Amino acid sequence: MKKALVILFDKVEEMEAVAPIDILRRARIDVTTASLEDGREVVGRSGIGFLADKKFNEIKGELFDAAILPGGPGIPDVAQHSEVGELLLAHDAAGKIVAAICAAPMILDISGVLRGRKCTAHTSVAADIENCDESKNVVEDGNVITSRGAGTATEFALAVLTRLAGAEAANDVAKSICFVR
Amino acid sequence: MKKALVILFDKVEEMEAVAPIDILRRARIDVTTASLEDGREVVGRSGIGFLADKKFNEIKGELFDAAILPGGPGIPDVAQHSEVGELLLAHDAAGKIVAAICAAPMILDISGVLRGRKCTAHTSVAADIENCDESKNVVEDGNVITSRGAGTATEFALAVLTRLAGAEAANDVAKSICFVR
Repeated sequence: MKKALVILFDKVEEMEAVAPIDILRRARIDVTTASLEDGREVVGRSGIGFLADKKFNEIKGELFDAAILPGGPGIPDVAQHSEVGELLLAHDAAGKIVAAICAAPMILDISGVLRGRKCTAHTSVAADIENCDESKNVVEDGNVITSRGAGTATEFALAVLTRLAGAEAANDVAKSICFVR
Repeated sequence: MKKALVILFDKVEEMEAVAPIDILRRARIDVTTASLEDGREVVGRSGIGFLADKKFNEIKGELFDAAILPGGPGIPDVAQHSEVGELLLAHDAAGKIVAAICAAPMILDISGVLRGRKCTAHTSVAADIENCDESKNVVEDGNVITSRGAGTATEFALAVLTRLAGAEAANDVAKSICFVR
């Protein structure tokens, strides 16, 4: 069974967190959510409270088939946690999927995962990232998948699922949720 | 300030719950989430745990500008709670927005809110609902708004927001989340 990690934190964009968790679990990917906060509780940018499966420290050092970082106004705080960048770099070095959406591609940039790879991001941060084409909903360059924002979170999650489980599995989930690409 | 209610329950479809909460709160709609379970905790169909603002009993009898019912495999259990249908009927009688997505239009049908109004719903239940056109992502008939599933939840939430705050506010949110209609 393929394994994916979704990193959660205070002021995460809720749709960007929930779409990958939901869509990957629908295809029986083993998704672990991990909180960067002191406890397992996180509160999103729109005040929705989630309980993560684990604390980030508990999964540090583990390798997943995909490491996914949602965006939101909490991203500048995430940038202060160097262990997030280290985890993403370790996944990149191992050829695993590294996926980020909205403002989160900033963390890929800062941590050295991007290294000039093509990407997309939210318009609010796109100008600060090299080779970032904010007109694209989803960009894949090798094992790095990026996306624009909450309104593209479903497409982003389906792109990650396609890489983990194949196009047929992703199309089945897209159909079951009535998503037309 | 406009007020909206999002009803939460075990096995709710998480994207269908989160999209309206997030998108309406982005436009400063006062959103209350209310749990049908014994406590305020609910666990969605994909295992994501939420903490609702209130228990359903605490908001029973209140009128909101919009009452929103997400779908998911928990809907047959919701059908056992007659007070949900009563709340939706009361909102309909008062001319408030009544919105349901995925399997939730079944509850509008059972409770007598639909009464032959045009609607859409998830393909798994559409055949059981009169005047249901499952080819449409969102259908509005008077004050009743329905939608198809998790993959149309953003469009659904923006339709509700358009009715509560106007097209300009909805377009601003759509732009901020990079959603292209």
